[in-house]
Amino acid sequence: MVIISHPEIETSMVQNFLKASVAPLEDITWHHLDAIDTLDVAAEQALLREHERIVFQFPLYWYAAPASLKAWLDTVLTGQFAFNGRQPLAGKTLGIVVSTGTAAKHFQAGGSEQVTLSEILRPYELVARKLGMVYLPPLTIHQLGYWQETDKQHLVIDYQRYLTQAQFNFDQKLAWFETMLIKKAAEATSPKAQQRITLLSEQLSDKRSELTDLNWQVQLIREEEGEG
Amino acid sequence: MVIISHPEIETSMVQNFLKASVAPLEDITWHHLDAIDTLDVAAEQALLREHERIVFQFPLYWYAAPASLKAWLDTVLTGQFAFNGRQPLAGKTLGIVVSTGTAAKHFQAGGSEQVTLSEILRPYELVARKLGMVYLPPLTIHQLGYWQETDKQHLVIDYQRYLTQAQFNFDQKLAWFETMLIKKAAEATSPKAQQRITLLSEQLSDKRSELTDLNWQVQLIREEEGEG
Repeated sequence: MVIISHPEIETSMVQNFLKASVAPLEDITWHHLDAIDTLDVAAEQALLREHERIVFQFPLYWYAAPASLKAWLDTVLTGQFAFNGRQPLAGKTLGIVVSTGTAAKHFQAGGSEQVTLSEILRPYELVARKLGMVYLPPLTIHQLGYWQETDKQHLVIDYQRYLTQAQFNFDQKLAWFETMLIKKAAEATSPKAQQRITLLSEQLSDKRSELTDLNWQVQLIREEEGEG
Repeated sequence: MVIISHPEIETSMVQNFLKASVAPLEDITWHHLDAIDTLDVAAEQALLREHERIVFQFPLYWYAAPASLKAWLDTVLTGQFAFNGRQPLAGKTLGIVVSTGTAAKHFQAGGSEQVTLSEILRPYELVARKLGMVYLPPLTIHQLGYWQETDKQHLVIDYQRYLTQAQFNFDQKLAWFETMLIKKAAEATSPKAQQRITLLSEQLSDKRSELTDLNWQVQLIREEEGEG
Protein backbone atom coordinates (compact mmCIF):
# COMPACT_ATOMS: atom_id res chain seq x y z
CA MET A 1 0.00 0.00 0.00
CA VAL A 2 1.36 3.39 -0.99
CA ILE A 3 0.14 6.19 1.28
CA ILE A 4 0.71 9.47 -0.54
CA SER A 5 0.75 12.86 1.12
CA HIS A 6 0.86 15.60 -1.51
CA PRO A 7 -1.42 18.63 -1.72
CA GLU A 8 -0.75 19.21 -5.45
CA ILE A 9 -0.48 15.68 -6.79
CA GLU A 10 -1.98 16.34 -10.24
CA THR A 11 0.78 18.75 -11.25
CA SER A 12 3.61 16.82 -9.58
CA MET A 13 6.05 15.40 -12.11
CA VAL A 14 7.45 12.97 -9.53
CA GLN A 15 4.04 11.63 -8.48
CA ASN A 16 2.87 11.22 -12.08
CA PHE A 17 6.11 9.45 -12.94
CA LEU A 18 5.85 7.06 -9.98
CA LYS A 19 2.20 6.30 -10.69
CA ALA A 20 3.01 5.45 -14.30
CA SER A 21 5.89 3.27 -13.09
CA VAL A 22 3.62 0.96 -11.12
CA ALA A 23 0.87 0.76 -13.74
CA PRO A 24 2.02 -2.77 -14.79
CA LEU A 25 1.96 -4.05 -11.20
CA GLU A 26 -1.06 -5.57 -9.53
CA ASP A 27 -1.72 -5.67 -5.80
CA ILE A 28 -0.75 -2.05 -5.25
CA THR A 29 -3.21 0.05 -3.26
CA TRP A 30 -2.75 3.71 -4.16
CA HIS A 31 -3.99 5.84 -1.29
CA HIS A 32 -3.89 9.63 -1.66
CA LEU A 33 -4.53 11.27 1.72
CA ASP A 34 -5.14 14.81 0.50
CA ALA A 35 -8.11 13.52 -1.51
CA ILE A 36 -9.84 12.32 1.68
CA ASP A 37 -12.09 14.80 3.49
CA THR A 38 -12.66 12.92 6.73
CA LEU A 39 -10.54 9.93 7.68
CA ASP A 40 -12.50 6.76 8.49
CA VAL A 41 -10.28 5.47 11.27
CA ALA A 42 -11.58 1.88 11.27
CA ALA A 43 -11.27 1.62 7.46
CA GLU A 44 -7.73 3.03 7.52
CA GLN A 45 -6.71 0.60 10.26
CA ALA A 46 -8.23 -2.28 8.25
CA LEU A 47 -6.17 -1.24 5.21
CA LEU A 48 -3.03 -1.29 7.32
CA ARG A 49 -3.84 -4.77 8.61
CA GLU A 50 -4.44 -6.07 5.06
CA HIS A 51 -1.13 -4.95 3.58
CA GLU A 52 2.34 -6.31 4.24
CA ARG A 53 4.29 -3.29 2.97
CA ILE A 54 3.25 0.22 3.88
CA VAL A 55 5.02 3.03 2.00
CA PHE A 56 4.79 6.71 2.92
CA GLN A 57 5.35 8.69 -0.27
CA PHE A 58 5.71 12.47 -0.18
CA PRO A 59 7.72 15.53 -1.17
CA LEU A 60 9.84 16.98 1.64
CA TYR A 61 8.13 20.16 2.92
CA TRP A 62 9.92 21.92 5.79
CA TYR A 63 11.91 18.79 6.64
CA ALA A 64 8.93 16.44 6.94
CA ALA A 65 5.95 15.07 5.03
CA PRO A 66 3.11 17.50 4.23
CA ALA A 67 0.52 17.98 6.98
CA SER A 68 -1.90 15.37 5.61
CA LEU A 69 0.45 12.51 6.62
CA LYS A 70 0.85 13.92 10.14
CA ALA A 71 -2.94 14.25 10.44
CA TRP A 72 -3.24 10.63 9.27
CA LEU A 73 -0.64 9.44 11.84
CA ASP A 74 -2.31 11.39 14.67
CA THR A 75 -5.80 10.18 13.74
CA VAL A 76 -5.35 6.60 12.55
CA LEU A 77 -2.61 5.34 14.86
CA THR A 78 -4.68 5.58 18.02
CA GLY A 79 -3.35 4.34 21.34
CA GLN A 80 -6.04 1.65 21.30
CA PHE A 81 -4.76 0.41 17.91
CA ALA A 82 -1.02 0.79 18.38
CA PHE A 83 -0.31 0.20 22.06
CA ASN A 84 -3.03 -2.11 23.21
CA GLY A 85 -0.76 -4.94 24.27
CA ARG A 86 -0.67 -6.34 20.75
CA GLN A 87 1.25 -4.77 17.85
CA PRO A 88 -1.09 -5.27 14.87
CA LEU A 89 1.55 -4.15 12.35
CA ALA A 90 4.52 -6.02 13.84
CA GLY A 91 6.77 -7.66 11.25
CA LYS A 92 5.36 -5.68 8.33
CA THR A 93 7.70 -3.31 6.48
CA LEU A 94 7.53 0.49 6.37
CA GLY A 95 9.14 2.25 3.41
CA ILE A 96 9.61 5.94 2.62
CA VAL A 97 9.66 7.36 -0.90
CA VAL A 98 10.68 10.99 -0.59
CA SER A 99 11.30 13.58 -3.28
CA THR A 100 13.23 16.81 -2.78
CA GLY A 101 14.00 19.87 -4.85
CA THR A 102 17.47 19.92 -3.30
CA ALA A 103 20.46 17.98 -4.65
CA ALA A 104 21.65 14.93 -2.66
CA LYS A 105 25.06 16.47 -1.91
CA HIS A 106 23.49 19.17 0.31
CA PHE A 107 22.25 16.59 2.82
CA GLN A 108 25.48 16.02 4.72
CA ALA A 109 27.67 17.74 7.29
CA GLY A 110 29.19 20.73 5.52
CA GLY A 111 26.45 20.73 2.87
CA SER A 112 23.91 23.53 2.82
CA GLU A 113 21.38 21.43 4.76
CA GLN A 114 24.07 20.19 7.20
CA VAL A 115 22.21 16.97 8.09
CA THR A 116 21.48 13.72 6.26
CA LEU A 117 18.05 12.62 5.09
CA SER A 118 18.39 9.65 7.47
CA GLU A 119 18.38 12.16 10.34
CA ILE A 120 15.59 14.28 8.87
CA LEU A 121 13.42 11.18 8.41
CA ARG A 122 14.22 9.78 11.87
CA PRO A 123 10.67 10.45 13.20
CA TYR A 124 9.27 7.96 10.63
CA GLU A 125 11.94 5.43 11.58
CA LEU A 126 10.81 5.83 15.20
CA VAL A 127 7.16 5.33 14.19
CA ALA A 128 8.18 2.08 12.49
CA ARG A 129 10.09 0.93 15.55
CA LYS A 130 7.23 1.82 17.89
CA LEU A 131 4.88 -0.30 15.76
CA GLY A 132 7.33 -3.22 15.58
CA MET A 133 7.74 -2.72 11.83
CA VAL A 134 10.90 -3.19 9.78
CA TYR A 135 12.09 0.19 8.45
CA LEU A 136 13.36 0.05 4.85
CA PRO A 137 16.17 2.32 3.67
CA PRO A 138 14.26 5.29 2.17
CA LEU A 139 14.09 5.65 -1.61
CA THR A 140 15.11 9.26 -2.24
CA ILE A 141 14.45 11.15 -5.47
CA HIS A 142 16.36 14.41 -5.80
CA GLN A 143 15.44 16.91 -8.52
CA LEU A 144 13.87 14.44 -10.96
CA GLY A 145 13.49 17.23 -13.52
CA TYR A 146 17.24 17.13 -14.23
CA TRP A 147 17.55 13.34 -14.65
CA GLN A 148 18.76 11.60 -17.81
CA GLU A 149 16.33 9.24 -19.52
CA THR A 150 18.36 6.11 -18.62
CA ASP A 151 18.44 7.11 -14.95
CA LYS A 152 14.68 7.51 -15.06
CA GLN A 153 14.37 4.00 -16.51
CA HIS A 154 16.43 2.68 -13.61
CA LEU A 155 14.13 4.52 -11.22
CA VAL A 156 11.10 2.71 -12.67
CA ILE A 157 12.71 -0.62 -11.77
CA ASP A 158 14.04 0.57 -8.42
CA TYR A 159 10.61 1.89 -7.48
CA GLN A 160 8.81 -1.28 -8.59
CA ARG A 161 11.28 -3.33 -6.54
CA TYR A 162 10.90 -0.99 -3.56
CA LEU A 163 7.16 -1.61 -3.47
CA THR A 164 7.17 -5.34 -4.14
CA GLN A 165 10.53 -7.06 -3.52
CA ALA A 166 10.35 -9.18 -0.38
CA GLN A 167 13.79 -8.43 1.00
CA PHE A 168 16.59 -6.20 -0.16
CA ASN A 169 19.44 -8.60 -0.70
CA PHE A 170 21.03 -9.79 -3.93
CA ASP A 171 19.32 -13.18 -4.05
CA GLN A 172 15.89 -11.58 -3.64
CA LYS A 173 16.77 -9.10 -6.36
CA LEU A 174 17.38 -12.00 -8.78
CA ALA A 175 14.21 -13.74 -7.63
CA TRP A 176 12.29 -10.52 -8.29
CA PHE A 177 13.66 -10.21 -11.82
CA GLU A 178 12.87 -13.90 -12.49
CA THR A 179 9.24 -13.41 -11.41
CA MET A 180 8.94 -10.32 -13.58
CA LEU A 181 10.36 -12.14 -16.61
CA ILE A 182 7.90 -15.03 -16.18
CA LYS A 183 5.08 -12.49 -16.03
CA LYS A 184 6.38 -10.67 -19.10
CA ALA A 185 6.61 -13.99 -21.01
CA ALA A 186 2.98 -14.75 -20.22
CA GLU A 187 1.98 -11.30 -21.49
CA ALA A 188 4.11 -11.38 -24.65
CA THR A 189 2.10 -11.13 -27.87
CA SER A 190 4.39 -12.89 -30.34
CA PRO A 191 5.48 -16.53 -29.74
CA LYS A 192 9.05 -15.53 -30.61
CA ALA A 193 9.22 -12.82 -27.94
CA GLN A 194 7.65 -15.22 -25.47
CA GLN A 195 10.26 -17.86 -26.23
CA ARG A 196 13.09 -15.39 -25.82
CA ILE A 197 11.86 -14.08 -22.47
CA THR A 198 11.24 -17.63 -21.19
CA LEU A 199 14.79 -18.59 -22.16
CA LEU A 200 16.18 -15.56 -20.33
CA SER A 201 14.10 -16.38 -17.28
CA GLU A 202 15.29 -20.02 -17.28
CA GLN A 203 18.90 -18.99 -17.64
CA LEU A 204 18.51 -16.58 -14.73
CA SER A 205 16.90 -19.36 -12.69
CA ASP A 206 19.70 -21.85 -13.52
CA LYS A 207 22.42 -19.39 -12.64
CA ARG A 208 20.80 -17.89 -9.60
CA SER A 209 22.71 -19.71 -6.88
CA GLU A 210 25.90 -19.35 -8.92
CA LEU A 211 25.32 -15.59 -9.28
CA THR A 212 24.55 -15.22 -5.58
CA ASP A 213 27.81 -17.03 -4.78
CA LEU A 214 29.71 -14.82 -7.19
CA ASN A 215 28.19 -11.72 -5.63
CA TRP A 216 29.43 -12.81 -2.19
CA GLN A 217 32.90 -13.43 -3.54
CA VAL A 218 33.02 -10.00 -5.18
CA GLN A 219 31.94 -8.42 -1.94
CA LEU A 220 34.63 -10.29 0.00
CA ILE A 221 37.31 -9.23 -2.46
CA ARG A 222 36.12 -5.63 -2.26
CA GLU A 223 36.22 -5.67 1.52
CA GLU A 224 39.72 -7.15 1.57
CA GLU A 225 40.90 -4.58 -0.95
CA GLY A 226 39.16 -1.87 1.04
CA GLU A 227 41.13 -2.86 4.10
CA GLY A 228 44.39 -2.58 2.23
CA MET B 1 4.54 34.85 20.51
CA VAL B 2 3.58 31.35 21.59
CA ILE B 3 2.24 29.24 18.73
CA ILE B 4 0.39 26.30 20.24
CA SER B 5 -0.50 23.14 18.40
CA HIS B 6 -2.78 20.96 20.52
CA PRO B 7 -6.08 19.38 19.45
CA GLU B 8 -7.34 18.97 23.04
CA ILE B 9 -6.02 22.08 24.74
CA GLU B 10 -8.92 22.60 27.19
CA THR B 11 -8.32 19.30 28.97
CA SER B 12 -4.51 19.46 28.83
CA MET B 13 -2.97 19.83 32.27
CA VAL B 14 0.32 21.01 30.77
CA GLN B 15 -1.28 23.68 28.58
CA ASN B 16 -3.47 24.97 31.40
CA PHE B 17 -0.47 25.09 33.70
CA LEU B 18 1.66 26.98 31.16
CA LYS B 19 -1.11 29.44 30.39
CA ALA B 20 -1.56 30.20 34.11
CA SER B 21 2.23 30.61 34.41
CA VAL B 22 2.33 33.49 31.95
CA ALA B 23 -0.80 35.24 33.22
CA PRO B 24 1.32 37.89 35.04
CA LEU B 25 3.35 38.66 31.90
CA GLU B 26 2.37 41.24 29.32
CA ASP B 27 3.44 41.24 25.67
CA ILE B 28 2.74 37.55 25.19
CA THR B 29 0.64 36.67 22.14
CA TRP B 30 -1.10 33.34 22.75
CA HIS B 31 -1.88 31.75 19.40
CA HIS B 32 -3.73 28.43 19.35
CA LEU B 33 -3.62 26.94 15.87
CA ASP B 34 -6.27 24.24 16.34
CA ALA B 35 -8.82 27.00 17.08
CA ILE B 36 -8.29 28.52 13.61
CA ASP B 37 -10.48 27.22 10.79
CA THR B 38 -8.70 28.80 7.84
CA LEU B 39 -5.25 30.30 8.16
CA ASP B 40 -4.96 33.92 6.98
CA VAL B 41 -1.47 33.69 5.51
CA ALA B 42 -0.80 37.45 5.37
CA ALA B 43 -2.00 37.93 8.97
CA GLU B 44 0.14 35.01 10.20
CA GLN B 45 3.20 36.38 8.41
CA ALA B 46 2.54 39.83 9.90
CA LEU B 47 2.42 38.28 13.40
CA LEU B 48 5.77 36.62 12.77
CA ARG B 49 7.30 39.92 11.66
CA GLU B 50 5.99 41.71 14.76
CA HIS B 51 7.44 39.33 17.33
CA GLU B 52 11.06 38.81 18.30
CA ARG B 53 10.63 35.41 19.92
CA ILE B 54 8.55 32.70 18.30
CA VAL B 55 7.82 29.62 20.42
CA PHE B 56 6.29 26.40 19.08
CA GLN B 57 4.49 24.75 22.00
CA PHE B 58 3.04 21.26 21.66
CA PRO B 59 2.75 17.75 23.03
CA LEU B 60 4.87 15.18 21.18
CA TYR B 61 2.58 13.06 18.98
CA TRP B 62 4.30 10.37 16.91
CA TYR B 63 7.69 12.08 17.30
CA ALA B 64 6.59 15.51 16.08
CA ALA B 65 4.12 18.31 16.74
CA PRO B 66 0.44 17.61 16.02
CA ALA B 67 -0.70 18.12 12.43
CA SER B 68 -1.91 21.68 12.96
CA LEU B 69 1.68 22.97 13.32
CA LYS B 70 2.78 21.17 10.14
CA ALA B 71 -0.21 22.63 8.29
CA TRP B 72 0.76 26.06 9.62
CA LEU B 73 4.41 25.62 8.48
CA ASP B 74 3.34 24.38 5.02
CA THR B 75 0.82 27.19 4.56
CA VAL B 76 2.35 30.25 6.23
CA LEU B 77 6.05 29.81 5.38
CA THR B 78 5.61 30.25 1.64
CA GLY B 79 8.60 30.35 -0.68
CA GLN B 80 7.76 33.97 -1.44
CA PHE B 81 7.94 34.81 2.29
CA ALA B 82 10.87 32.65 3.34
CA PHE B 83 13.21 32.44 0.34
CA ASN B 84 12.63 35.63 -1.56
CA GLY B 85 16.18 36.94 -1.29
CA ARG B 86 15.46 38.48 2.12
CA GLN B 87 15.06 36.55 5.37
CA PRO B 88 12.24 38.38 7.15
CA LEU B 89 12.75 36.44 10.40
CA ALA B 90 16.56 36.51 10.47
CA GLY B 91 18.03 37.17 13.91
CA LYS B 92 14.80 36.41 15.77
CA THR B 93 14.74 33.43 18.14
CA LEU B 94 12.78 30.19 17.77
CA GLY B 95 11.99 28.22 20.91
CA ILE B 96 10.31 24.86 21.42
CA VAL B 97 8.23 23.95 24.47
CA VAL B 98 7.46 20.26 24.20
CA SER B 99 5.62 17.99 26.62
CA THR B 100 5.80 14.22 26.60
CA GLY B 101 4.12 11.38 28.47
CA THR B 102 7.45 9.54 28.48
CA ALA B 103 10.14 9.99 31.14
CA ALA B 104 13.31 11.89 30.16
CA LYS B 105 15.57 8.85 30.70
CA HIS B 106 13.99 7.00 27.75
CA PHE B 107 15.25 9.57 25.24
CA GLN B 108 18.83 8.34 24.90
CA ALA B 109 20.77 5.52 23.30
CA GLY B 110 19.83 2.39 25.20
CA GLY B 111 16.61 3.96 26.47
CA SER B 112 13.29 2.70 25.18
CA GLU B 113 13.08 5.53 22.61
CA GLN B 114 16.77 5.08 21.64
CA VAL B 115 17.19 8.68 20.40
CA THR B 116 17.39 12.07 22.11
CA LEU B 117 14.75 14.77 21.91
CA SER B 118 17.39 16.96 20.21
CA GLU B 119 17.38 14.46 17.34
CA ILE B 120 13.60 14.07 17.28
CA LEU B 121 13.17 17.85 17.15
CA ARG B 122 15.88 18.33 14.49
CA PRO B 123 13.33 19.26 11.76
CA TYR B 124 12.37 22.38 13.78
CA GLU B 125 16.03 23.25 14.29
CA LEU B 126 16.43 23.02 10.51
CA VAL B 127 13.41 25.29 9.97
CA ALA B 128 15.05 27.86 12.29
CA ARG B 129 18.32 27.63 10.41
CA LYS B 130 16.62 27.93 7.03
CA LEU B 131 14.92 31.12 8.24
CA GLY B 132 18.14 32.55 9.72
CA MET B 133 16.68 32.34 13.25
CA VAL B 134 18.54 31.47 16.45
CA TYR B 135 17.33 28.09 17.78
CA LEU B 136 16.91 28.01 21.56
CA PRO B 137 17.56 24.82 23.54
CA PRO B 138 14.07 23.28 23.80
CA LEU B 139 12.20 23.45 27.11
CA THR B 140 11.05 19.88 27.71
CA ILE B 141 8.33 18.87 30.15
CA HIS B 142 8.15 15.16 30.88
CA GLN B 143 5.14 13.68 32.69
CA LEU B 144 4.07 16.86 34.53
CA GLY B 145 1.42 14.86 36.38
CA TYR B 146 4.09 13.27 38.58
CA TRP B 147 5.94 16.48 39.50
CA GLN B 148 6.41 17.77 43.07
CA GLU B 149 4.91 21.18 43.87
CA THR B 150 8.34 22.86 44.24
CA ASP B 151 9.44 21.55 40.81
CA LYS B 152 6.27 22.98 39.33
CA GLN B 153 7.08 26.34 40.90
CA HIS B 154 10.50 26.23 39.26
CA LEU B 155 8.83 25.44 35.97
CA VAL B 156 6.71 28.60 36.23
CA ILE B 157 9.90 30.68 36.46
CA ASP B 158 11.77 28.66 33.81
CA TYR B 159 8.85 29.01 31.42
CA GLN B 160 8.47 32.76 32.03
CA ARG B 161 12.20 33.17 31.41
CA TYR B 162 12.04 30.97 28.30
CA LEU B 163 9.44 33.26 26.76
CA THR B 164 10.92 36.60 27.77
CA GLN B 165 14.59 36.47 28.78
CA ALA B 166 16.74 38.11 26.11
CA GLN B 167 19.66 35.68 26.21
CA PHE B 168 20.33 32.54 28.15
CA ASN B 169 23.46 33.37 30.09
CA PHE B 170 23.94 33.99 33.79
CA ASP B 171 24.14 37.79 33.56
CA GLN B 172 20.85 37.94 31.61
CA LYS B 173 19.27 35.63 34.15
CA LEU B 174 20.11 38.14 36.92
CA ALA B 175 18.90 41.04 34.78
CA TRP B 176 15.62 39.19 34.21
CA PHE B 177 15.10 38.63 37.95
CA GLU B 178 15.91 42.29 38.64
CA THR B 179 13.27 43.46 36.14
CA MET B 180 10.72 41.08 37.61
CA LEU B 181 11.43 42.33 41.15
CA ILE B 182 11.02 45.98 40.10
CA LYS B 183 7.67 45.06 38.53
CA LYS B 184 6.61 43.13 41.62
CA ALA B 185 7.54 46.12 43.83
CA ALA B 186 5.36 48.41 41.72
CA GLU B 187 2.46 45.99 42.07
CA ALA B 188 2.88 45.34 45.81
CA THR B 189 -0.18 46.31 47.85
CA SER B 190 1.41 47.05 51.25
CA PRO B 191 4.20 49.67 51.61
CA LYS B 192 6.16 47.22 53.73
CA ALA B 193 6.16 44.51 51.06
CA GLN B 194 7.06 47.13 48.47
CA GLN B 195 10.02 48.29 50.55
CA ARG B 196 11.28 44.76 51.01
CA ILE B 197 11.09 43.87 47.33
CA THR B 198 12.76 47.15 46.33
CA LEU B 199 15.58 46.45 48.78
CA LEU B 200 16.03 42.96 47.31
CA SER B 201 16.04 44.36 43.78
CA GLU B 202 18.66 47.01 44.70
CA GLN B 203 20.86 44.44 46.38
CA LEU B 204 20.66 42.24 43.31
CA SER B 205 21.51 45.22 41.11
CA ASP B 206 24.52 46.19 43.29
CA LYS B 207 25.88 42.68 43.34
CA ARG B 208 25.13 41.79 39.72
CA SER B 209 28.61 42.22 38.25
CA GLU B 210 30.11 40.62 41.36
CA LEU B 211 27.76 37.62 41.05
CA THR B 212 28.51 37.26 37.33
CA ASP B 213 32.24 37.28 38.14
CA LEU B 214 31.71 34.70 40.85
CA ASN B 215 29.71 32.49 38.48
CA TRP B 216 32.59 32.51 36.00
CA GLN B 217 35.07 31.59 38.71
CA VAL B 218 32.89 28.70 39.86
CA GLN B 219 32.65 27.47 36.29
CA LEU B 220 36.41 27.67 35.84
CA ILE B 221 37.02 25.76 39.07
CA ARG B 222 34.51 23.12 38.01
CA GLU B 223 36.14 22.72 34.62
CA GLU B 224 39.59 22.40 36.16
CA GLU B 225 38.28 19.84 38.64
CA GLY B 226 36.48 18.06 35.85
CA GLU B 227 39.73 17.69 33.94
CA GLY B 228 41.44 16.13 36.97
